[in-house]
Amino acid sequence: MGQFQGVVPAIISPKNEDGTLNEDAFRATMEFNIQAGVHGFWVAGGTGESVLLDDEENQRIAEISADQNAGRTQVIMHVGANTTARAEKLAAHAAQAGVEAVCAVPPFFYQGDDDGVVEYYRAVGAAADRPLFIYNLPGCTGLDVSPALMQRLVDEVPQTTGLKHSSPVFANLIEFVGMGLDAFIGSGKLMLPAMTVGAVGSVDGPLCAVPELWMAIWNAYQAGDLAAVQTAQERANAFHRTVAQFGYFGSILAVVSQRIGMECGDPRRPLRPVRPEERETVLAQVEDLGLEGF
Amino acid sequence: MGQFQGVVPAIISPKNEDGTLNEDAFRATMEFNIQAGVHGFWVAGGTGESVLLDDEENQRIAEISADQNAGRTQVIMHVGANTTARAEKLAAHAAQAGVEAVCAVPPFFYQGDDDGVVEYYRAVGAAADRPLFIYNLPGCTGLDVSPALMQRLVDEVPQTTGLKHSSPVFANLIEFVGMGLDAFIGSGKLMLPAMTVGAVGSVDGPLCAVPELWMAIWNAYQAGDLAAVQTAQERANAFHRTVAQFGYFGSILAVVSQRIGMECGDPRRPLRPVRPEERETVLAQVEDLGLEGF
Amino acid sequence: MGQFQGVVPAIISPKNEDGTLNEDAFRATMEFNIQAGVHGFWVAGGTGESVLLDDEENQRIAEISADQNAGRTQVIMHVGANTTARAEKLAAHAAQAGVEAVCAVPPFFYQGDDDGVVEYYRAVGAAADRPLFIYNLPGCTGLDVSPALMQRLVDEVPQTTGLKHSSPVFANLIEFVGMGLDAFIGSGKLMLPAMTVGAVGSVDGPLCAVPELWMAIWNAYQAGDLAAVQTAQERANAFHRTVAQFGYFGSILAVVSQRIGMECGDPRRPLRPVRPEERETVLAQVEDLGLEGF
Amino acid sequence: MGQFQGVVPAIISPKNEDGTLNEDAFRATMEFNIQAGVHGFWVAGGTGESVLLDDEENQRIAEISADQNAGRTQVIMHVGANTTARAEKLAAHAAQAGVEAVCAVPPFFYQGDDDGVVEYYRAVGAAADRPLFIYNLPGCTGLDVSPALMQRLVDEVPQTTGLKHSSPVFANLIEFVGMGLDAFIGSGKLMLPAMTVGAVGSVDGPLCAVPELWMAIWNAYQAGDLAAVQTAQERANAFHRTVAQFGYFGSILAVVSQRIGMECGDPRRPLRPVRPEERETVLAQVEDLGLEGF
Repeated sequence: MGQFQGVVPAIISPKNEDGTLNEDAFRATMEFNIQAGVHGFWVAGGTGESVLLDDEENQRIAEISADQNAGRTQVIMHVGANTTARAEKLAAHAAQAGVEAVCAVPPFFYQGDDDGVVEYYRAVGAAADRPLFIYNLPGCTGLDVSPALMQRLVDEVPQTTGLKHSSPVFANLIEFVGMGLDAFIGSGKLMLPAMTVGAVGSVDGPLCAVPELWMAIWNAYQAGDLAAVQTAQERANAFHRTVAQFGYFGSILAVVSQRIGMECGDPRRPLRPVRPEERETVLAQVEDLGLEGF
Repeated sequence: MGQFQGVVPAIISPKNEDGTLNEDAFRATMEFNIQAGVHGFWVAGGTGESVLLDDEENQRIAEISADQNAGRTQVIMHVGANTTARAEKLAAHAAQAGVEAVCAVPPFFYQGDDDGVVEYYRAVGAAADRPLFIYNLPGCTGLDVSPALMQRLVDEVPQTTGLKHSSPVFANLIEFVGMGLDAFIGSGKLMLPAMTVGAVGSVDGPLCAVPELWMAIWNAYQAGDLAAVQTAQERANAFHRTVAQFGYFGSILAVVSQRIGMECGDPRRPLRPVRPEERETVLAQVEDLGLEGF
Repeated sequence: MGQFQGVVPAIISPKNEDGTLNEDAFRATMEFNIQAGVHGFWVAGGTGESVLLDDEENQRIAEISADQNAGRTQVIMHVGANTTARAEKLAAHAAQAGVEAVCAVPPFFYQGDDDGVVEYYRAVGAAADRPLFIYNLPGCTGLDVSPALMQRLVDEVPQTTGLKHSSPVFANLIEFVGMGLDAFIGSGKLMLPAMTVGAVGSVDGPLCAVPELWMAIWNAYQAGDLAAVQTAQERANAFHRTVAQFGYFGSILAVVSQRIGMECGDPRRPLRPVRPEERETVLAQVEDLGLEGF
Repeated sequence: MGQFQGVVPAIISPKNEDGTLNEDAFRATMEFNIQAGVHGFWVAGGTGESVLLDDEENQRIAEISADQNAGRTQVIMHVGANTTARAEKLAAHAAQAGVEAVCAVPPFFYQGDDDGVVEYYRAVGAAADRPLFIYNLPGCTGLDVSPALMQRLVDEVPQTTGLKHSSPVFANLIEFVGMGLDAFIGSGKLMLPAMTVGAVGSVDGPLCAVPELWMAIWNAYQAGDLAAVQTAQERANAFHRTVAQFGYFGSILAVVSQRIGMECGDPRRPLRPVRPEERETVLAQVEDLGLEGF
């Protein structure tokens, strides 16, 4: 495939009852999404419990996502880590495992200056030698990547290809698009408005549970039918509100479990699981959306 | 006119050389915008130097804006003030002067709790007994009106009709639209994306200097021509970047001076004037936009 | 008097029943505090409802505070305002009225850059030609004056003499002291720790209601009796907690009313008054402190 | 030993040239500090590169710090981690290794709600069954532990004994002391003011490089000689400024290297090393302090 675009679910990392990674459920979730027509995956990112996974798990996920995908979509593997060395190691492994691209949050916990951020991405980009996406996630990292810093990354890190923008500051998206980056909006609720200013699509967790809702947005947008896009976006937003009620991670895991017919387990602590009665409420609300096969 | 919508310039408050309000230039700026087809005015707001004006100036502006408008567009007069009593007084006067609606920032400097904000708006709404717009301007007031607080205003202040959303948190716009409010986006750069999620238009300062750029967005949007809207939005954004370089207030005043053929003066201190050489740069960049009659 | 130091109450602005300034109660509050031995007053500042007062009220307060004080303590009059011109006018008037010093918050609502802040203080300092105190009050103004900006004020505004530090960032106090400034800590709860790093005293609202509690801190500190200072500080902090329960302004007004035997009224809206039952609770708690004559 | 108090250096984690942990230098640093009379150690915390260490390194540090200490001081081992499970594992190991207490930052990257924070600390406290210190480090974690949350930890986590307060909001220290906690101030520059409001001492990185400067503060404070404490604090603050110039971590490692006569290496990337010329400047400034044996 060529450029990066479209509906790119941030995929969950399903667990077995003992808390270990459930590879079968991971593969089934990917396959369910591929059948729904998604354009790629954001793997082991924010929704995929990113930094709660250990290195072996991250590496295994890179391997099975590349294997399951088999070139059918664009797999963008998250390799950000506490230390530059670990991010480099994960980046090199992911490339070797065959993913199409890598992405990384900036260094977190220890906030360095802009020089340190650039050096970190330079190391990650060089280690993977694949297209690199900047994952701008200030709610988790404490750093909202400014247009000035992003411009440095474009200029000084040759692999920089795009970004996921999960900042409340929507307007910066216009600047990032103006730099020629493949910009994904990090909130699926904003896919339509983001595309009108040049975003190439959306990367977000809810997409992996009900990809057809965001595919409807994409397809109507390609057809140039603005009214249809708006209707599709509102329907997708209803799902977004549903999974925001009781804990985002557990709710998405619950809905995916239902859709693939395999239990995907709880998120890893300190993330909060959904309680049984909450799960019922979530599933009942999703049923009201009238999705095929739900 | 019926509902509130469209291109609503936040109009400057031009000054004479001695720093007093230049009423002729104010009227000429309104007339220039009305001829360009704008749907209303946001008067004595952020761009109009709001709280830098004294009560007599605010009242005079209410009178001349209503008089000059003469019912041709929707005049929304800003009446927010440090004390509830002053906001009430300005609101009552503005209504009597004949403006179509009033708007107000929340109390600032002294940040009360949500109860205090509701009580303030209740007083302002009752004093004007006209449609009331909430002016969400956290960069100046320190308060980013949350969806929960906005819902209280909708429920407890009967005049609440809409808002201007000048917060970086774009996503809250979706919530405000869902409350049935006439929501204007406070950044003209975001007029297109905001309208796709239900905003009724844009209120912003740059619009009063080059209204045709935003009218082009509005007209193309009404015609359903998304590609044309995007082209128009990009052209408007170029102007936005121009006035952001050297001080927003002085730059807009300079461009309006050129357009109406009357000197509009400097903004009131502590706002920064543009220096002569900066003014030349700004005007040269605007000339490059190829506007008719510039 | 020479240098600025000690217990400097931020004095309330009492009101008559009709909301106008109660000059007799203002004078009585000053006198009560002078009798308690305070070293000065911070007049029409944050506790004095600063920007809720109009220019005539501010000017009248400057006159009566200078007159009532009659050189017995140091009157520091607040002259900060929305516009540089109003701040200059108030500063010139206050100097003429005979206050010992002026103070001002930085420009608020419209946040300029550091150059604008320096220019504003240069204008205020020149207009008063009296010792100038910077009032660092980020909770109201949105600007936490950094050590770098403070150094510029020291270097570029010749009247700069000191500051009131009402920022949560306590550690900057050390930098300000290192610049040779007369630094008052803006929270009376921190008078002891602030003095150990070089602060010259405290300016805060609760001091004007129970000055003897802070005079006890001051006197024990001068005597070098650390254990006694700590005991005194803890007693003062109990009062601080009392007035933080139901609305700071109304509570302090209520306690002063009791102490001077004159009703001081409610704070100006949007500030919240204390309700009658809250007032009783506050007064009962103060009674438990066992102050003489309460 | 009984209660926790005094000069408790946050100790570095020295590295070999290949980036691995230098155990000999770690032991030598501890010994150098014990000889200087320190009361305990904060091990593998913020200065010790905490979350940049892997589990095996953290466990090895717990073992050698307990072994080297041999009960002579109080070793407080940091066990906070991304996942609750890892924090539990590290806590159980540290207890078994023989440390006197454990400490932990709140969950980071994924910010849960207060319930999640309490559950995390309950798990950590139970796993170690040793005195537990809350490490309030909002600059790294994004969470400034409020007095309300701290009270919940006191009430619901039986091992909660104290905290390190590394928040800019100094005033909350008073609340924490009021809860009966052993509160250490996280900035060595504030040791004196913090102790006057009831802090039991200071935990900070610079202490491990020049412990005698903080021992002088402690000893003068115990002797009740306030003037001597102030002089000692100012001397310590000069060192604090020295290590803040070019990168805190590398500077402290450089000074310790000089003091123990063993090279302690660079901090782990993305932390920034000091450049050779910066190192010389730092060492020259420390020499000017006139420390014995430097």
